[in-house]
Amino acid sequence: ALKRDVGSLHQSELGHLLEALSAEQRRTLVELLGSDFDFSALTEVDEAIRLEIVDSLPNEQIAQAVQQLDSDDAVYILEDLDEQDQDEILAQLPFTERIRLRRSLDYPEETAGRRMQTEFVAVPPFWTVGQTIDYMREDKNLPDRFSQIFVIDPTFKLLGALDLDQILRSKRAVKIEDVMHETRHAIPASMDQEEAAREFEQYDLLSAAVVDENDRLVGVLTIDDVVDVIQEEAEEDLLRMGGVGDEELSDTVLTASRSRVPWLLVNLFTAFLAASVIGLFDRTIEHIVALAVLMPIVAGMGGNAGSQTMTVTVRALATRNLDIYNAGRIIRREMGVGFLNGIIFAVLIGIVAGTWFQDANLGGIIAAAMIINMFVAALAGILIPLLLHRLGADPAVASAVFVTTVTDVVGFFAFLGLATWWFGLL
Amino acid sequence: ALKRDVGSLHQSELGHLLEALSAEQRRTLVELLGSDFDFSALTEVDEAIRLEIVDSLPNEQIAQAVQQLDSDDAVYILEDLDEQDQDEILAQLPFTERIRLRRSLDYPEETAGRRMQTEFVAVPPFWTVGQTIDYMREDKNLPDRFSQIFVIDPTFKLLGALDLDQILRSKRAVKIEDVMHETRHAIPASMDQEEAAREFEQYDLLSAAVVDENDRLVGVLTIDDVVDVIQEEAEEDLLRMGGVGDEELSDTVLTASRSRVPWLLVNLFTAFLAASVIGLFDRTIEHIVALAVLMPIVAGMGGNAGSQTMTVTVRALATRNLDIYNAGRIIRREMGVGFLNGIIFAVLIGIVAGTWFQDANLGGIIAAAMIINMFVAALAGILIPLLLHRLGADPAVASAVFVTTVTDVVGFFAFLGLATWWFGLL
Ligand SMILES: [Mg+2]
Ligand SMILES: [Mg+2]
Ligand SMILES: [Mg+2]
Ligand SMILES: [Mg+2]
Ligand SMILES: [Mg+2]
Ligand SMILES: [Mg+2]
Ligand SMILES: [Mg+2]
Ligand SMILES: [Mg+2]
Ligand SMILES: [Mg+2]
Ligand SMILES: [Mg+2]
Ligand SMILES: [Mg+2]
Ligand SMILES: [Mg+2]
Ligand SMILES: [Mg+2]
Repeated sequence: ALKRDVGSLHQSELGHLLEALSAEQRRTLVELLGSDFDFSALTEVDEAIRLEIVDSLPNEQIAQAVQQLDSDDAVYILEDLDEQDQDEILAQLPFTERIRLRRSLDYPEETAGRRMQTEFVAVPPFWTVGQTIDYMREDKNLPDRFSQIFVIDPTFKLLGALDLDQILRSKRAVKIEDVMHETRHAIPASMDQEEAAREFEQYDLLSAAVVDENDRLVGVLTIDDVVDVIQEEAEEDLLRMGGVGDEELSDTVLTASRSRVPWLLVNLFTAFLAASVIGLFDRTIEHIVALAVLMPIVAGMGGNAGSQTMTVTVRALATRNLDIYNAGRIIRREMGVGFLNGIIFAVLIGIVAGTWFQDANLGGIIAAAMIINMFVAALAGILIPLLLHRLGADPAVASAVFVTTVTDVVGFFAFLGLATWWFGLL
Repeated sequence: ALKRDVGSLHQSELGHLLEALSAEQRRTLVELLGSDFDFSALTEVDEAIRLEIVDSLPNEQIAQAVQQLDSDDAVYILEDLDEQDQDEILAQLPFTERIRLRRSLDYPEETAGRRMQTEFVAVPPFWTVGQTIDYMREDKNLPDRFSQIFVIDPTFKLLGALDLDQILRSKRAVKIEDVMHETRHAIPASMDQEEAAREFEQYDLLSAAVVDENDRLVGVLTIDDVVDVIQEEAEEDLLRMGGVGDEELSDTVLTASRSRVPWLLVNLFTAFLAASVIGLFDRTIEHIVALAVLMPIVAGMGGNAGSQTMTVTVRALATRNLDIYNAGRIIRREMGVGFLNGIIFAVLIGIVAGTWFQDANLGGIIAAAMIINMFVAALAGILIPLLLHRLGADPAVASAVFVTTVTDVVGFFAFLGLATWWFGLL
């Protein structure tokens, strides 16, 4: 009964079920299912859980199971294993299967070659539409689902492609080469998966041919896997901007803690930098304690304004909406926004602070410091991600710490420095 | 020559070109192209640019042009216009076209009904595969691209669906009702677009039937538009967490400034809240200026740790990876991480601060305050987004301000309060 119930689940539903269970319940479920366990569910769970399940199974069972999977799903499971296990499992596969998986695994992580499926439908250009339809009716070795067929020469060089709806609209006697379109969107196997995903988005593709360096068809990349890439990359950017690494929800306390400590360490260091700026003015603070009360406001507002600009910049860089053609215009815009918002909040904070401490001088000083810091924040918010991007670093990962360091240091220095100078406490 | 060059561009390339040009250049280009201007490019540009172009054209030309578009693209362009323009344009369309667009526009924004395309292929269940293929070969009114055909009864009630590859694999004599699969993934027209996108992701759909409240087929949602939805929703969450509204890169200084002011205002208010906590201890700071130097470190580290937890939580809520089944476990994990990292950084900061100011007491006090604030930060980082989600608010938009307010207030209060008490300065 369990086998029947679980067997009727979609792979993603089984995946969710596995994630909801405890480690022990998972082991029991997988054992009970035995060879009925659908390995494709493993492509839907967190990496930690996938490794846990795969490691608990004998390599023979894994070798048996991955043969039932599409090659991309098999690779997705195998790539996380250590090399020895990989070799053992591959050794137990039939020759062609082994070669196919090995080829995908030989491409670097996060490339189109790693994500492609090596099962596809390809026909020669001189066939007719009718021949092609008959071939598809008879051949039982077709991939489970496909939305495009490819046209190749005997050396597997890619000549063109045909959407299925085009075949269905054409008469049986028509030659394939007369209805195929040249594949403008063939994707090199070494292309980064994120760039491949942008091709899919831009040209509304359902699938795309993946070719090797000699333009030979080696696989097909499909939109359902591209959707997963898009989600992963969006998640990666969001988590990185939040100062979290490649963390997953199923990670333990220790793993999660370890992944977050580096970022906190960097922040601790920069916090001491900001603190030492305050330390420069300890005599001033001793005389006017109100400065200590107000100084976090200047620094904090700058930090928030800088984060706004930085968020817009990082996202625009990720989607390629920001490039050298419009960078100048966007920089000028951000400077304008920083200056305008600086004036607005300078007036506000000047009035409130001046009234609070009954000191118009203090109000004027904090207002001036606010304009300076908001303007610097805007500059830092756009120039730092642009610079990191230019240097080939991921702007999502490092921008936040640089931007807030700048706004803290400039905020404290401008406010306390202006106060020290104005009140003649030098 | 211009017409030929521009005419050969893909709609998304023309869209990028339009975004790269200045407003004046855009106007000139659209004028020169005249009726050759491909309106589908408007679905690829920022809303501000779309409105600018559409507003500059006479309603007659728009009415002419939207008839060439898929209904979903036409709706995407029309939905931003004011009602009077919409009515004028719709009035100039043929009856069926008008009814179709009106129906989509009647569904609320960001629903499947708004995003669907009303052009689809539907056949009765008693047809054979051969009849269906012949119909597709002859009918010239088919949508430009499709990956699925639907099976309906005479009242348009949805009975099932068929992928194109299934048709190609079946013999001509087979009845449609014998190969069709019942559509488990029909999407109600009133479903939120984000939820519809999750269905596509989970079940790897290429297209899905959209049905009205009586289960009648009204349209089809396709993966290329779902990909746009996924990107929009990911962008929305990222920008909201960064304290930016629905801003676009083409917005002017004034528009961008206006969209960022509300968030900065809220932050100004909470910054005063934190400042007033410092104000409570002004006597203590007067005596020990080192406290003013160190206090931003405690508050800032708590803020960063809280942001880490909050980022993980907001993302997990958006992808539905965090739900009532695992909330308890995740809360316990975050408390563990907060406590562990609190101890690590308490030791570090205690040693550094104690050495810097040659005062072991100060080191002990800042260490204790750090543990408290990091633990509270973890709690705030997970409970605040969960609570907001529970109350039906978007956790991405409001969590950050609440979390940093908590970590600022608690950070300052714990550090300065402990110091006041320990040094007997009450
Ligand atoms: Mg992987
Ligand atoms: Mg990447
Ligand atoms: Mg697209
Ligand atoms: Mg796949
Ligand atoms: Mg998949
Ligand atoms: Mg990326
Ligand atoms: Mg755009
Ligand atoms: Mg819109
Ligand atoms: Mg939404
Ligand atoms: Mg999927
Ligand atoms: Mg569409
Ligand atoms: Mg589209
Ligand atoms: Mg959303």
